[in-house]
Amino acid sequence: MMRKKWITGICSSVLSISLITLGQGNAFADASAAQAGSGKEVKNVILFITDGMSLSDVNLARWYQGGQPLEMDKYFSGLVRTYATDSLTTDSAAGATAYATGHKVKSETVSILPDKTTMPFIEPTPKQDMNKPLPTLVDAVRLNGKSTGVVFTCELTDATPATFLSHAYSREYAYSIAEQMVYSGVDVLLGGGSDYLVPGKGEVNRKDGEDLTKVLKSSGYEYVTNKKDLLNTQTDKVWGLFNKEALDADFDLNPQQQPSLKEMTQVAIDKLSKNDKGFFLMVEASQIDWFGHDNDPVGVISETLAFDKAFKAAIDFAQKDGNTAVLSVSDHATGGLNMTNYDTAKDLVSILKKAKHTSYGIEGDINEKNFKKMLADNYALPDLTKEEAEAVRKGLKDNLSPVIGKILGERVGVSFSTDDHVAEEIGLFAYHPNNYKPTDFAQSGVIQNIDVNKYIQEVTGLQLAPLEKTLFVSGDQFKTKGATVTIDKTDKQNPVIAVKKGSQSLKLPIDKNIAVIDGKTIKLNALTLMIQNKTWVSQEAIDLIQ
Amino acid sequence: MMRKKWITGICSSVLSISLITLGQGNAFADASAAQAGSGKEVKNVILFITDGMSLSDVNLARWYQGGQPLEMDKYFSGLVRTYATDSLTTDSAAGATAYATGHKVKSETVSILPDKTTMPFIEPTPKQDMNKPLPTLVDAVRLNGKSTGVVFTCELTDATPATFLSHAYSREYAYSIAEQMVYSGVDVLLGGGSDYLVPGKGEVNRKDGEDLTKVLKSSGYEYVTNKKDLLNTQTDKVWGLFNKEALDADFDLNPQQQPSLKEMTQVAIDKLSKNDKGFFLMVEASQIDWFGHDNDPVGVISETLAFDKAFKAAIDFAQKDGNTAVLSVSDHATGGLNMTNYDTAKDLVSILKKAKHTSYGIEGDINEKNFKKMLADNYALPDLTKEEAEAVRKGLKDNLSPVIGKILGERVGVSFSTDDHVAEEIGLFAYHPNNYKPTDFAQSGVIQNIDVNKYIQEVTGLQLAPLEKTLFVSGDQFKTKGATVTIDKTDKQNPVIAVKKGSQSLKLPIDKNIAVIDGKTIKLNALTLMIQNKTWVSQEAIDLIQ
Repeated sequence: MMRKKWITGICSSVLSISLITLGQGNAFADASAAQAGSGKEVKNVILFITDGMSLSDVNLARWYQGGQPLEMDKYFSGLVRTYATDSLTTDSAAGATAYATGHKVKSETVSILPDKTTMPFIEPTPKQDMNKPLPTLVDAVRLNGKSTGVVFTCELTDATPATFLSHAYSREYAYSIAEQMVYSGVDVLLGGGSDYLVPGKGEVNRKDGEDLTKVLKSSGYEYVTNKKDLLNTQTDKVWGLFNKEALDADFDLNPQQQPSLKEMTQVAIDKLSKNDKGFFLMVEASQIDWFGHDNDPVGVISETLAFDKAFKAAIDFAQKDGNTAVLSVSDHATGGLNMTNYDTAKDLVSILKKAKHTSYGIEGDINEKNFKKMLADNYALPDLTKEEAEAVRKGLKDNLSPVIGKILGERVGVSFSTDDHVAEEIGLFAYHPNNYKPTDFAQSGVIQNIDVNKYIQEVTGLQLAPLEKTLFVSGDQFKTKGATVTIDKTDKQNPVIAVKKGSQSLKLPIDKNIAVIDGKTIKLNALTLMIQNKTWVSQEAIDLIQ
Repeated sequence: MMRKKWITGICSSVLSISLITLGQGNAFADASAAQAGSGKEVKNVILFITDGMSLSDVNLARWYQGGQPLEMDKYFSGLVRTYATDSLTTDSAAGATAYATGHKVKSETVSILPDKTTMPFIEPTPKQDMNKPLPTLVDAVRLNGKSTGVVFTCELTDATPATFLSHAYSREYAYSIAEQMVYSGVDVLLGGGSDYLVPGKGEVNRKDGEDLTKVLKSSGYEYVTNKKDLLNTQTDKVWGLFNKEALDADFDLNPQQQPSLKEMTQVAIDKLSKNDKGFFLMVEASQIDWFGHDNDPVGVISETLAFDKAFKAAIDFAQKDGNTAVLSVSDHATGGLNMTNYDTAKDLVSILKKAKHTSYGIEGDINEKNFKKMLADNYALPDLTKEEAEAVRKGLKDNLSPVIGKILGERVGVSFSTDDHVAEEIGLFAYHPNNYKPTDFAQSGVIQNIDVNKYIQEVTGLQLAPLEKTLFVSGDQFKTKGATVTIDKTDKQNPVIAVKKGSQSLKLPIDKNIAVIDGKTIKLNALTLMIQNKTWVSQEAIDLIQ
């Protein structure tokens, strides 16, 4: 595929925005920021999102490895407020959208402006812009000729990866999201969820009959489904989906089949860094959230440590490269984990360290007959009491994770307070070659999630605001040009916006970046979308009609 | 009193310790540290300790005031690990001792070396040094001719103020602690607990018959017990205890009688800053912990906001002064507060804002008859259900705080997960005129509690290590000089170490800084102590015997 090098009015050189005068409270930061000047700018940004990770989760993972500092510890630099426009407590869609687009949005929505704003300090959306798709960092970066990548351990359609590459009124619109991702122009995408790309009889196979892996291949991607093939890829445009649905947790995965988060991160960096103009990579540690929901402390440890290793790989690259910023944030915290260990402090580490698999890793093999041995061998529970054994038996019929998580937790003084999200601030971990951090940008140690996005815009010299005017405009603009607009639903699962004016005919398949103008197919700089029955198209598409 | 200007071998000028080479990860910090050079040093340090305050407590207080950033937010700069030598979860004695002395110690002990070490990364104490008293920052600062102050809202004998001015095997040894504080040489002490100073029939009046207020007055202090008298004090040596036991919570206090934490902080700064050599002030927001234990969200808000106002007063002084560092840390977190608000996000602020008094503030007035009106007028509970009313009735006979705290919490999506401490990391808030922070000192965003002490040593140019060799040495050293040592228990409540060698006679009253050598009374540079039947005396005292 020839990617169209459509350059916006974005200035990739040093931003000329003058520094806001810092308060007296930051004299040193002030001086440094001023000195830094062009020193703020970096070529590459790697953004980690640790889904659902609370700072107490990090504490637990630290004690699992004996209390030794984690790689991330050194880079901790602030707290992030994650509330959505309609809720103090955030979901992953609204949480990650803030990082992807620089806008707080409504819960459950994917990179579109909110149609509901009840929280303080957020301007309500003007009616005509409600549900308008928002350009993401991936858009700004790819349109500037840099490379882009997205790595995760969930299904590709899950909220966090979705927010960087697609737009939807609900995070549940998985098939639309998957299709948008295929047409998003992202260079490297690695994770789970291959069934979302192909028709079939599986639970999440496509219903629209399309085999999107063919689209990927015809668009110049290598498409791989196991670690060996990933390591053998030759080009820098790669999709790798290593399981039909989500990947296995780090403690549980088969290293012959599935790459670890660290390995995916390294491959992505290897490929993306070949672009001399630079790159943006988003890496999600997806499952910390799930184990928080399921109240499994071992799962929280598995995924938090897997993140820490991937983070270290990114830091190692950045330190060697000298022109890369690395950030890590969570979209929200999940589970309300607490450590209240007094009496067992001495044993905490030794007990925890015996946990070798998560509850997910044993759930396929554990049963009424073998559960005592299974839990002793894998989950640091060698000596179930009668009551505990009874609880496990019941859990086997329902959801085992919180049952064994609670038993282990009681032995090491770890408990969860909810199976849902919590509204606490989450941690910001940041590396910048000249130590210019989002907290410097925001002039506060407690920042907003959208500040992270704005910081990335600043340090990459990119701007989303101009793209917000041109990448997604109302399809009604065709009408103001005297054209007629209809939705062609001949193929029900693949509707097309059909625009006619005189002899001109323009077809815009929804969820794709394709335009067929008078029978000729061209690539657009953005996706064509229909959200809540309203169409949104690139200004490029509008301009095709004279 | 003539305070003896005993100057130790402490170097108050720029520390000559060369900077440890920073890792690649901190290039900018590296440059700054190097540039800063003498720029690290400050004349004054104000250290806040927010007892029991978790970062979620701060979040709740922020939403009480509509979600507006708190003063402290801007200065958030890292996380602090607070574990003790024998427990992952820390109590206030071990937690505050780390800040006062730079040593992690055993739970419940007050500024003495631990006799139990079970946690990782801590060297066990050599047997001969077990329970040895540790010099504190107050010692280092006062012996360097600077002024010292301690401010709090609990009783003076509570663990946190105790750790800066006294030493005990148990934080429960309140009478010994109070006496040591009177003889500690601290210049300004403001808070609660006046009954600990005088004999009487109250629950906490002294049993040893001593009226320590007389000692204070004869030692040159002004001693005041109400706000008006405090504001009228003329000298810079002031003790003010504004209630028999703890002060009232900020939402509840009578501003005619009791000064607020902010007002006490301002008075302390006014007085201490008159010393041209500088000062060290510790300010404790004592009761955040208590409301965490009692699961009262309104109390948490009251005391967190009271701290924030006091913190702002300190920041305002520091910014004007230009030579003052301000730090805030917690000794540990308490209560495991979580916010899980989804549905009531819109109402959260409006409901919370109606809470005008803490559960402590109404407990004297609320009863079976008036509780509905009392809770409606004071505690944002205008509409108790039948079940809630029943729960309140029961609570009135036992502990009302967690009952009404839970009812209010359910309406605003706030819950506590324990009535005890939790082991999560706590927040570091830091201001330094040249922006050199404890995280720069420790080269990590996650630091140890003892790093905060070491940072203060560095920026004040003071060192505790030399004092550890001289301020408290074993009383056995008299024996090596050929003297006999007995404990004179003529006055059972006021034992005295009696040393004899030939014609020389030395008497050292325990818990005081007094020596009677051959009938002549002199002041020592440190307290005389007996801990677990072992005596500890200043090297000055040892040297009095030829």
